[in-house]
Amino acid sequence: MKLEDQLDQGDLLEIKYGNSLLKGMYISKEKDLLIIKLENGYNLSLPSSSIEILSHVSQKRPVGLSGNGSSKIGKGKTHITIITTGGTIASRVDYSTGAVKPVKDLEFLTSSIPGITERFNLKLSEYGEILSENMTPENWISLGRSARDFMKKSDGIIITHGTDTMSYTSSALAFMFERQTTPVVFVGSQRSSDRPSSDAFLNFRGAIEFSSTDFGEVGIAMHETISDTGIALHRSVRSRKMHTSRRDAFRTIGSMPVGYSDPKGTVFREGYRKIADEISFSDRLDSKVALIYFSPTLSSEDLENVIAGRHAAIIMGTGLGHVNTDLAETIRKSSRDGIKIMMTSQCINGSVNMNVYSTGRILKDAGVIPMGSILPEVAYVKAMYVLANYPSEEFEKRMQENLRGEILEREISSQFNEGGF
Amino acid sequence: MKLEDQLDQGDLLEIKYGNSLLKGMYISKEKDLLIIKLENGYNLSLPSSSIEILSHVSQKRPVGLSGNGSSKIGKGKTHITIITTGGTIASRVDYSTGAVKPVKDLEFLTSSIPGITERFNLKLSEYGEILSENMTPENWISLGRSARDFMKKSDGIIITHGTDTMSYTSSALAFMFERQTTPVVFVGSQRSSDRPSSDAFLNFRGAIEFSSTDFGEVGIAMHETISDTGIALHRSVRSRKMHTSRRDAFRTIGSMPVGYSDPKGTVFREGYRKIADEISFSDRLDSKVALIYFSPTLSSEDLENVIAGRHAAIIMGTGLGHVNTDLAETIRKSSRDGIKIMMTSQCINGSVNMNVYSTGRILKDAGVIPMGSILPEVAYVKAMYVLANYPSEEFEKRMQENLRGEILEREISSQFNEGGF
Repeated sequence: MKLEDQLDQGDLLEIKYGNSLLKGMYISKEKDLLIIKLENGYNLSLPSSSIEILSHVSQKRPVGLSGNGSSKIGKGKTHITIITTGGTIASRVDYSTGAVKPVKDLEFLTSSIPGITERFNLKLSEYGEILSENMTPENWISLGRSARDFMKKSDGIIITHGTDTMSYTSSALAFMFERQTTPVVFVGSQRSSDRPSSDAFLNFRGAIEFSSTDFGEVGIAMHETISDTGIALHRSVRSRKMHTSRRDAFRTIGSMPVGYSDPKGTVFREGYRKIADEISFSDRLDSKVALIYFSPTLSSEDLENVIAGRHAAIIMGTGLGHVNTDLAETIRKSSRDGIKIMMTSQCINGSVNMNVYSTGRILKDAGVIPMGSILPEVAYVKAMYVLANYPSEEFEKRMQENLRGEILEREISSQFNEGGF
Repeated sequence: MKLEDQLDQGDLLEIKYGNSLLKGMYISKEKDLLIIKLENGYNLSLPSSSIEILSHVSQKRPVGLSGNGSSKIGKGKTHITIITTGGTIASRVDYSTGAVKPVKDLEFLTSSIPGITERFNLKLSEYGEILSENMTPENWISLGRSARDFMKKSDGIIITHGTDTMSYTSSALAFMFERQTTPVVFVGSQRSSDRPSSDAFLNFRGAIEFSSTDFGEVGIAMHETISDTGIALHRSVRSRKMHTSRRDAFRTIGSMPVGYSDPKGTVFREGYRKIADEISFSDRLDSKVALIYFSPTLSSEDLENVIAGRHAAIIMGTGLGHVNTDLAETIRKSSRDGIKIMMTSQCINGSVNMNVYSTGRILKDAGVIPMGSILPEVAYVKAMYVLANYPSEEFEKRMQENLRGEILEREISSQFNEGGF
């Protein structure tokens, strides 16, 4: 087999093409063209007959499932528990009103995937029918407990969830599970299952494949592109819904998805946490946390009002982590009163750095804790977890510690952003 | 000259390659490869010798300046006024502290571009030294007045500005100028001019080129990619700072930049507004507007507190435009009290649609005005403009009317998102 047929997405290549030496990342092969992402972010597709691969560094490796899929528990069927919480993936169009309504029975999903019942023993458990915008930290706790209970008698947990707040809920569970004995895979869809363009079936199939591996984290399985090519697995604590309606709305911010599944198999990038021998789970979250978006008319009074009665607040500042310096005194006062104030960026991408400009240093001096590359919504959920599970004097240290992969080791341009927006 | 040498970025092509018929958008030519963005978002690079261009629809056309640049005012020099407001582009590193500090004199910038003084008469006017996170609607008003005054005696206006809130300020000016007689081009930089990696000089050169064309809008000139390839001109009301530190941090959301400048020339996409014969400017903004980010712990009390005393509020909801349905009553009450409540999405990309799910319909019934594809920060600035410049009964209609290109006619994947994040 030729080297070019053994490449995995993400592999680093040096290629000779005519007189040019090109460096880039392998994306895919389409017809006879090898598609490479150059370091400047552009993709090139090179006729495979006229290139020579000079060097090849693999960035991924297949695990557990591959090809036709032998599961990790050997010859028997893999037992997957599907916890349903509502959302579009568990909805159908009500043609009398044109609106989307929840359905209780997910058999239309499970029965739609050929051969799935021969490989998997799928058990449904209804958590509720909650629109994801109505999910609260109390729901996260009870859903986490449910996942923990089913984990003891399952090989994998799938949670169907509305996409709107799926990153919030799944990040909460990611922090609550310090160790887990099965994967926990959230899955949703952008279009309900009775629409011709529905992404429900493929997302669900991907979730099943991911849920029967040694992935010992909480992830989100959704379309990788707008085409029905394959399903990406996003680490929950790096995920964000970045489009209101596209099927590839979910993105891993600042990195590539941790896993990928298509009919050819299921692969993971290196560096994910493997499943553990025992569960370490906390059902404690302190929901007295606020998420505040800075804008030029945000006043000290606004800030005081939102912070009042809370134990922590996450600010989405501008750029590297700034707000109007007039707000520094309110922050200093709240911070002295023991309220923890964290800084993230409304840029979404990149990393907060409060040492570059005077405003950053003023805010740090006032007590603001910079969150680095942690996403705003994830810092918000993490604060609830850290407040409830560590002594107060460890708060800052724990918030800045990489507990679940929420902090980027290094930022890499995601090939999965190819589709652009 | 062959057709492939006359293509502009963004042109739509049908190409025959072997037996395949490919449709896509022209990106660039590198060596002998024609780079095409396919409709699925992927780029292909095809050897130009083995393709046949079957059809070609131009999406751009060169204007005013091209090649060595003949300016629109004929033989004399073009008079450009540069209004400085501070920010990184007007800063240098203080090597005693390692911090970035403002500098008054921008000659280091203007003198750095060879031949620039032969073509342009550059006049500096200091508005102030304001960190962009400290800019307020009052600043937008006085800065707008200053731009209007200089517009009367200039062929182009450049405003140097910190990048953090550049989209807010430039959007405000975009609404204030219903008609303008010169371009207004905001420019900033992500790294100060004395750093080797500074983007200040190229951004500034791009701003000068854009400011001497017939572009009758307010735009932002920043690096198109992380490389020093060229400068993109973003329509302010579609722009957003999407990265804390990268040189290509600014993006046109949901579309392509409106203009592009590199040493080969300056080109625009079709559909921009041309400069007018006279100025129509309003210096009225009602700053009693709040921008609110929904999160699962946002309470009715939080919402009441922020809305109190305001005339309008923009909510950044989840997905297609949702918040916890428990908040609907507070919204209904505020709406009855005459406070305008608008909905945008924290997804950033895509469009609010409040007819798909029950929550959307409940919120609309409670009085929420959906903002479609208008960006949250732009809806916030637009509300200030509409409140102050139209009768109250026209508010909803004007907010949903495309006043300055802030509403997408159609969403297109931006080739400028190629670099990914």
